[in-house]
Amino acid sequence: MYRPEIKVLDCTIRDGGLMNKWQFEDTFVKAVFEACCKAGIDYIEVGYKSSEKNFSREEHGAWKFCTDDDILRVLGDDCANRGIKIAAMADIGRIEYEDIPPQSESAITLIRVACYVHQIDKAIALAEHCLDKGYEATINLMAVSKAMERDLDEALDDVAASRVPVFYLVDSYGAMYCEQVERLAKKYVQALPGKTIGFHGHNNQQLAFANTIEAIIHNCNYLDGSLFGIGRGAGNCPLELLMSFLKNPKFDPRPLYDVVHDQLLPLRRKIEWGYHVPYLITGVLNEHPRSAMKYMDDPEDKRSSIVEFYNAIADGTILD
Amino acid sequence: MYRPEIKVLDCTIRDGGLMNKWQFEDTFVKAVFEACCKAGIDYIEVGYKSSEKNFSREEHGAWKFCTDDDILRVLGDDCANRGIKIAAMADIGRIEYEDIPPQSESAITLIRVACYVHQIDKAIALAEHCLDKGYEATINLMAVSKAMERDLDEALDDVAASRVPVFYLVDSYGAMYCEQVERLAKKYVQALPGKTIGFHGHNNQQLAFANTIEAIIHNCNYLDGSLFGIGRGAGNCPLELLMSFLKNPKFDPRPLYDVVHDQLLPLRRKIEWGYHVPYLITGVLNEHPRSAMKYMDDPEDKRSSIVEFYNAIADGTILD
Repeated sequence: MYRPEIKVLDCTIRDGGLMNKWQFEDTFVKAVFEACCKAGIDYIEVGYKSSEKNFSREEHGAWKFCTDDDILRVLGDDCANRGIKIAAMADIGRIEYEDIPPQSESAITLIRVACYVHQIDKAIALAEHCLDKGYEATINLMAVSKAMERDLDEALDDVAASRVPVFYLVDSYGAMYCEQVERLAKKYVQALPGKTIGFHGHNNQQLAFANTIEAIIHNCNYLDGSLFGIGRGAGNCPLELLMSFLKNPKFDPRPLYDVVHDQLLPLRRKIEWGYHVPYLITGVLNEHPRSAMKYMDDPEDKRSSIVEFYNAIADGTILD
Repeated sequence: MYRPEIKVLDCTIRDGGLMNKWQFEDTFVKAVFEACCKAGIDYIEVGYKSSEKNFSREEHGAWKFCTDDDILRVLGDDCANRGIKIAAMADIGRIEYEDIPPQSESAITLIRVACYVHQIDKAIALAEHCLDKGYEATINLMAVSKAMERDLDEALDDVAASRVPVFYLVDSYGAMYCEQVERLAKKYVQALPGKTIGFHGHNNQQLAFANTIEAIIHNCNYLDGSLFGIGRGAGNCPLELLMSFLKNPKFDPRPLYDVVHDQLLPLRRKIEWGYHVPYLITGVLNEHPRSAMKYMDDPEDKRSSIVEFYNAIADGTILD
């Protein structure tokens, strides 16, 4: 039994790039793309659309900007016709409307707009601008585990009244247990009739895959994963696990096993992501992982004990 | 809200020893014991009770045998009076009755009998023998994901008629999703009125913690975990995650964070456990992890590709 409505989105490059400022080798990005094509993945999110006036190319790799020049150079001139749709994320305030070309001139099909609850009106405006330019568009509402319920209800009303067809439940801090996923998925489905709900988890408590299954059970149909779970801090739902679970005949997880062994394992010897106690702590305490990432980066002999770190987060003396 | 009936069992040394033949430093074992005491853990399983005529001390460390001499030497003479109960596991066929001293002469309080479904009568006999000698006893039915339903029903009838008070649902192969945990937990609870059900998960699909939460929801009250998930292959439910989730006021996860940083992270530089694609594959295909462990141990240039490994397991050309 499978649900043909389900679409899987790989965010290996986009979310993984938060760990290395998108300084990936071209061969790595190409290998991920080819594996996703072969596996039958629906979308591959290759990075962010950002304005070069806001970020420098010296500090950030190509996938912070996702120009068509870079996309075609690395993924191939025919990348828009390989059966997988190319996506990019746009953060509110980090992209100018004029930096988004008409879709007819781009290899990108889908633009996902990420925002916090107080930015929902700006996000709807940007997403509708993308729709008007010919793109598919989603809104990914981040950090909902910290949003006040009244603000969330208002945001959902605004999205319901918009033309944006897909809205994501995002567990930014890896703070949710299955009960929270169930409650929010049901709330989103009910508040947004006719729209599709997506799910994006984080793995601070090793629950990203389990929560994605829970989201599937409660009618989320856009599902995010990344290879070997690469992503900020504890990372994401491992794409190879998700694809091994789904039974859609068009999916084949085996090319993903290959690329994990050929590309992700060597990369993990250079940059470290995945479950660690500091990420558990920010997850359990429903905080942004940036303090945990700083803790992980600090030399062992220069940092406080892990219990001092916990106490500081729990007491609110480290707020972010 | 918490459930006072819940008991947490640490199996760091017992299950972790499957990765290094129980060749732990005494200081490591002592540090784990002290952390579990401070954290309010109910039971610590320090290894197996095995007969020395079946296994050699040259090959295996002390915790393959769990003699009282070793327990007292490493954990301290007062270890039986520290508020945590000491447990050991016994495998059917690997222990003689006469190797089990009366409980009044031992620091061990609980003996857990592990068996396959065809061994249930032997397991009941051994567990009742332990009860008669003054121990607490459980039966841990392994590999239930491969048992035929009729055999399982008969085994449950036998356990129901026995004096064994605690029976474990065990996901030996890390093959279960939350639906299977729900179904089996409900089945066990219904078939065994008046008895306590436990849960022991494996992390092949990064679901050990999620499945433990599912088991809690469905009235399992004995819960296993190991520090940083150490255990055979993909390992177990990380104890520090479980203890961060539970809200029993007597529990404090912080000593566990400390011992993970001080002891488990250094150990993991020497022996590797945890999520990897070969373990995912045996989990998804509901097979014993031994072929995956062999694959992980083989030198990279001497082994088949990961897709060849998958195909061999899926085709049944590697049966174990």
